[in-house]
Formats: sequence, structure tokens, C-alpha cells
Amino acid sequence: MSLIDNAIHLPKEEMPRQWLNVLPQLPEPLGAYKAPDGSDMPPAALGAIFPPKLIEQEFSDQAQIPIPEPILEAYALWRPTPLVRAYGLEKALKVNSKIYYKNESLSPSGSHKSNTALAQAYYNHEAGIKRLTTETGAGQWGTALAIAAQRFGLDIRVFMVKVSLAQKPYRQAIMSLYGAEVLSSPTTLTQAGRAALEQNPLTPGSLGLAISEAVEEAAGRADTNYALGSVLNHVILHQTVIGQEIKKQLALVGQKPDYLVACHGGGSNFGGLAVPYVADVLAGQKIQLLAAEPAACPSLTKGVFGYDYGDMAKLTPLMPMYSLGSDFVPPAIHAGGLRYHGASPIVSSLVKSKIATPVAVSAQDAFQYAKLLAQTEYVVPAPESSHALALTCLKALELEKAGTPGVLVFVLSGHGLLDLSAYENAPD
Amino acid sequence: MSLIDNAIHLPKEEMPRQWLNVLPQLPEPLGAYKAPDGSDMPPAALGAIFPPKLIEQEFSDQAQIPIPEPILEAYALWRPTPLVRAYGLEKALKVNSKIYYKNESLSPSGSHKSNTALAQAYYNHEAGIKRLTTETGAGQWGTALAIAAQRFGLDIRVFMVKVSLAQKPYRQAIMSLYGAEVLSSPTTLTQAGRAALEQNPLTPGSLGLAISEAVEEAAGRADTNYALGSVLNHVILHQTVIGQEIKKQLALVGQKPDYLVACHGGGSNFGGLAVPYVADVLAGQKIQLLAAEPAACPSLTKGVFGYDYGDMAKLTPLMPMYSLGSDFVPPAIHAGGLRYHGASPIVSSLVKSKIATPVAVSAQDAFQYAKLLAQTEYVVPAPESSHALALTCLKALELEKAGTPGVLVFVLSGHGLLDLSAYENAPD
Repeated sequence: MSLIDNAIHLPKEEMPRQWLNVLPQLPEPLGAYKAPDGSDMPPAALGAIFPPKLIEQEFSDQAQIPIPEPILEAYALWRPTPLVRAYGLEKALKVNSKIYYKNESLSPSGSHKSNTALAQAYYNHEAGIKRLTTETGAGQWGTALAIAAQRFGLDIRVFMVKVSLAQKPYRQAIMSLYGAEVLSSPTTLTQAGRAALEQNPLTPGSLGLAISEAVEEAAGRADTNYALGSVLNHVILHQTVIGQEIKKQLALVGQKPDYLVACHGGGSNFGGLAVPYVADVLAGQKIQLLAAEPAACPSLTKGVFGYDYGDMAKLTPLMPMYSLGSDFVPPAIHAGGLRYHGASPIVSSLVKSKIATPVAVSAQDAFQYAKLLAQTEYVVPAPESSHALALTCLKALELEKAGTPGVLVFVLSGHGLLDLSAYENAPD
Repeated sequence: MSLIDNAIHLPKEEMPRQWLNVLPQLPEPLGAYKAPDGSDMPPAALGAIFPPKLIEQEFSDQAQIPIPEPILEAYALWRPTPLVRAYGLEKALKVNSKIYYKNESLSPSGSHKSNTALAQAYYNHEAGIKRLTTETGAGQWGTALAIAAQRFGLDIRVFMVKVSLAQKPYRQAIMSLYGAEVLSSPTTLTQAGRAALEQNPLTPGSLGLAISEAVEEAAGRADTNYALGSVLNHVILHQTVIGQEIKKQLALVGQKPDYLVACHGGGSNFGGLAVPYVADVLAGQKIQLLAAEPAACPSLTKGVFGYDYGDMAKLTPLMPMYSLGSDFVPPAIHAGGLRYHGASPIVSSLVKSKIATPVAVSAQDAFQYAKLLAQTEYVVPAPESSHALALTCLKALELEKAGTPGVLVFVLSGHGLLDLSAYENAPD
């Protein structure tokens, strides 16, 4: 008997040695960021909260950026991640399509966020920074940055969205285990936090507000920088290892993708999947890039394209993006990582130029297919990832009905083991 | 730059195709099990709660037992598991010893329990059984059996030790996600449960009591069998894939072990590590097999060897083993999987004949080194596994002091992501 390996493994030597920068490829150049007051903003203005290398990457015109060795060494702890053929799921759905998932849940933090967390911690450490502040929604980003800070010897303070902290107490425990200080946002430590509490003492908090708090503190301290887990160009850049690996893995089994699906909150997961395929789409290949966003926070499908702030207190630059408005407080859905009012400028540009297509997914579908994945593939997906999973399943069923099965790949951006309370209260 | 892979991977084809049975190798044959009233007990008496194949394995004199294909296929979902060189841990400890850990946390359930859960569910399914009952302490066994039951189409009811359920609410959520019914033990559904509640309405429960409840129910229903996650010979048999893989993996890097360490509750993890090495020890190789048990429940180091019951209500056969007494209720330590009054007959025999050595480990040491492992290897160990880890670290430090570094291997029996509340209240 020969044993089937459901996973396509890339050898370590095949790990991507560079990140892919989509900026030079975009049909229309991204509009320049503007200062919060609307005036022109030189890149150097970001120096108050970011190290020089990340600012350089944010606006780079290089097509490829080599990954420094200390980051490659850290990636090698778990990368390349397997691309798994979901035979059990296909069978349960009774579809002839081939469904693959890229298992980013195997990282030290349990999600794809480690890809950029390690890069950001490294560049800050290189720049002599001793301390980072950040926000976290579901806790995946905070966990990833806590581990990355631990690896590169930085202290870290995490502003965690109040409602998420209450929903997911184990998140605080794991970030603390890795040495992070975790605060429930809004706090009374920042002007942004105090203002929000004054307006509504019972606010559940939001990612936009937690970002304001973390940025405000970092801007006010010379030894402290801020790190963002999504939205920005350099974050998406670091995530492009995902799409690059998928491409190599599909080539190993002689497959070409028809649909590539990732969840969309701020854009880092979707961007990391999509960017390596942008050139193929522009060259006319029939690949659909689908961004699965929650119906409860539909920034891409219902948002308006224009300049908006990345945070609630309007401390960040104005960026060209789809947005529901920087003062939008999304409902307390369990996919906390997708509770963001805006979308990254890069993903916004891909959607605007019709290279990528956004689809809103209901929480009900997300939970239903999450349960199916657990019971067929023995993997518990994060609520965020479940949106990509659900969209993939719905698409596979649609293809089956049309008699046109295809090859679908979704990113399992993280596991849901620290989100299990969500499953207890899941909508039926 | 060539990237270091800290993990030694075995190819799928190298997965063990047989389990190793230690019974024919033991210097003294195991004493026969006796009926609860002390009379002779024919193996067939176990037929009320176990399928024929497992009873056959319990008393087999075959040195090797082939693993059936459906179980191999299930194992292939994640096995072979990697053997990881813990460079980060070695560096932090400042030791020249080589420390490896066998990462059993990568199974669908997150622990080594899946190795026997899948085998037991398979044999019950083959025997026409529709439903399983079981107990669980920390929740690892219950999770593993829930997934295994899901795979082979069985219903399952889990009696979870009350104190563990309260400590680890996510465990109930994950077992439910996989379709299991989870009850807090003691319940009022069984005589054993009612008797315990009458004696002490506030009892925290114990593994021994939860076993009584599960056995009582299974014995009374023809469509229902019972499954035990540790202690018994057939359970240890199924776990021998662990030690077999380690042997091959160490050979791949030209290493021989000086110390092999696993935690000890009922004996399945330690047995699975030790059994494949028993012949080597008997042949005079200098390998120390160390069983790390919790100081709060020291069945091997402080227990008495003799015949005792496996459960509190004295429903199980009498077995020859080290025991603290079947009515011993261990304190509510966080390593719930190690809260068992007895030890498996096989491990008891190995200890009695000095093939294996037990060592009691304090909860304080377990948590201290768990934190160190997280911060150096980016893995959160289960509280149970932390006992093996701590003993390994203490031994490596001792070897360093003596100027005699060696090769140490411990089993990371499971991850601690569903036990994070334990870390919040960890002793300093």
C-alpha cells in the first residue's frame, strides 16, 4: 500500500528569497498618501513611527525586494507551508472541482501574520528601536508581533479591541506568555482612547480606534515605533511569500488555478495571495482573484473609493482606498480580524481596476463551512479564514451545477483554536 | 545561504507499518488481570466494553502487530511527525547537550492521543459498534476520540472531569464541533456518579471517577462500547509509532539517544516512547528511559505496586500496577492528563524491573520551562508535556555541570493552546 500525502510540500531550498512588489505593476499608480490635514506628505514624515527600511518598501518601485537572511532564517522555522488537497471537503460537497488550501495556520503564531511580523520586528531592531506598539483585533496580529518581538529582543505593548479581548481571553494569555503587555482598547492612556470613552463609555472598541491609540503612543516616544498588521504596502509585500509558494506548489502537481480566494479585512491575506498572480491576470490568464469579506463589514463591496484615514482619530495619513468611513464601528462579529472600516490601497486598486473581485460572505455561511472543514479535514479554521473557505465552497457548488468543475485554492490564514468561543455562539 | 531545517522529517513511506508489542519482551510476564471481585478473569469478560480485536491486542504474544490500512491512511494525515532539534532551547540553557523533541502536537487533535483514538474507533466500527463512551481529563483524549469517531462514523459521549471542564471551556467547544456530546463528570446519569456526588457534592471529579461513569454506561448498552485513552496494553501498543519514528529519525542524523523522556499520567505517552527501546536497554545499551510524573500525583515514585482497580467505583478489572489507591482524588493541577491514581501495567513492569526510571517534577518547574520553550522554540507545550520538557532541561543542566553533555529526546505530547488558562494562573 502506498500512502497518499494530501499535502504538497516545497523543499526548504525552494522557499522564496524575495518579496514581490506590485506597485510598479499596477495599471494606475497609487495616489500619493496625504498628511492628515490633506496637505502633501513626504515619505519621511512616517519616520516618527516606522523605521527607514519599511518606509522605503512602502513606496518602492523595485519589482522584487530580497528577503534579508535573519528573516529567511525565521521563516524557515515553519515555511514553506504545505498546500493541501482537501479531498475530504470535496467528497462532502460532492464536487468534481479540485480544492486546495494553503495552510498558513502552521506558523508559530498560528496565522499568516507571522510573515510580516518577523520582517517588521527585524527592521525596527536594525534601526535601533527598543519598543513597539500595535493594535490587534482577533488577536492574531498581536500574537504574531509578540513572538516576533521576542525573537528580535523588542518590548511590545498591544492595544487589543475590547470586544475581542472579552471574546477571546486565551489571546491575552498567549501574548503575555511571549512577553507582550496587553491592554483593552480604548484605554485612558491616550487622547484617542479618552475621547472615545467620553463619547460612549460602553464602546466595544474597533480596530480603527486601537490603531489610533498605538500610533499616538509611538509618535510621542523616540524609542518606540508602531507596527501595523495589514493595510499598508509593505505589509502586503511581506505576505507575497504565500502566493509565490502556491504558484510553485501547483506547478509541482501540474495544476493551474481557476479561482484564488482569501479573506479580506485590511488586505494583507488577500494581497499576499493575489500579488504574485497580478502579472498573469494582466497577461490575460483566466484566473479569478476573489476577496471574501464579511457581510457585516463590507468595505470593498459597499464602501466608497476615495481618500480616508486608516484610524478613527484621524492620526494616520489619508490613503486612497475603499472605506466605510473611518468612524464606522463594525458590529461585534467573531471574525475580529475582518472588522476594519477600510481596505488596503493596493487591494483597493486591484478591485478598482477589476483585477480582483470582492464578494461579501455571511457569518452563517462562514460558520457552516468551518464546521464542515473541521469534520472532513480535521482542521479548525479561524473565523476570518472561514470566509474564504465558505466562498470557495459556494463557488465549487456553483461550478458543479454549471457542469464546469475547476481548480480552487483558498488560504487558510489561521487556525481557530483560540477562537473556539466563537463556535459556541455561532449562528445556525 | 542555505537554510537550516531544525526538523528531521521522515518520508511518508518510512511510516511504521506495525505496532510493537512489548509483552513478549518483558523480563517477568505481566500478572493476569482479575475480575473486580478478585476471581480469575477470562479475556472474553472484557467483551462487554471492548471489541474482539482490541481484547486480542491486550493479551497478544506477537512481537509485532500490522497496522490495518484504514488506520495507516488516517495516520498519514499527519504522520510521521517531525523530530525537532531545539537549538533555541539549548542556547538559552547554555548547554552543549543536543536536545530534540518529538512533535506529537501536530496531530488533528493536537496531541499523541490521536494515535490510539483512530485505532480504537476503527476496531469498534469494524465490530459493528455504533457508539462510544469515554472519559477525559485535560480534554486531549476526548478531543482525539471525538475526531476519530467522526472519521469512522460513530457517536460519542464524553465524561469530562468537572474541574478540567471548568478550567478549559474551549475543550468542550472543540469536542462539540467534532460532534461529541460532552458531560461534566460526575453526572447523575450513572450510579458511580450519583454515589460520588452524594459523598461530596462539591467534588472536583477525577479521571478514575469519569472512567467509572463511562464504563458503567457502556457495559449496560449493547450498541455502545467504552474506549480508554491510556493505561491498557493495547493503548500503549498503538502509541509505539512514536518511539519507532524517533529511532529512524535519530539514525538519519547519526545520533544515539542517552536520555528518552516522556510525561507519565496513565502511561500511554511514556509507553509509546519507551517500548521500541526496551530491547536495546535489555541488550545493554546505555539509554535512560525517564518517566516524568507530576509531584502532586506521583503514582510511580510514591505509589505501591500491587493489584488495584483502574477506576474509582471498582468496575474495571484488577490490574498489577503502581497506584496511589483507586479512591485517590488528586489535587486540581493544570496537567489534568496526569491526574491519574495508577500507572499502566506495562510501565509499572518496566519501572519494577528497572528498565525505566520515574522522576517527579514540580508544577513550578513545568511552567518555568514551558515558558522558556515558548520563548525560544515558539511552541506552547501542553502542561502534561511540560513535565517531560522540564525534566529534560534539568537533566541537560546536570550533564553540563558534570561536563558530560549527551543526546536528550523528549516527547512534546501535545500543544497547550487549549490550556492557556493554566498559564494565566501558573505558579511562579
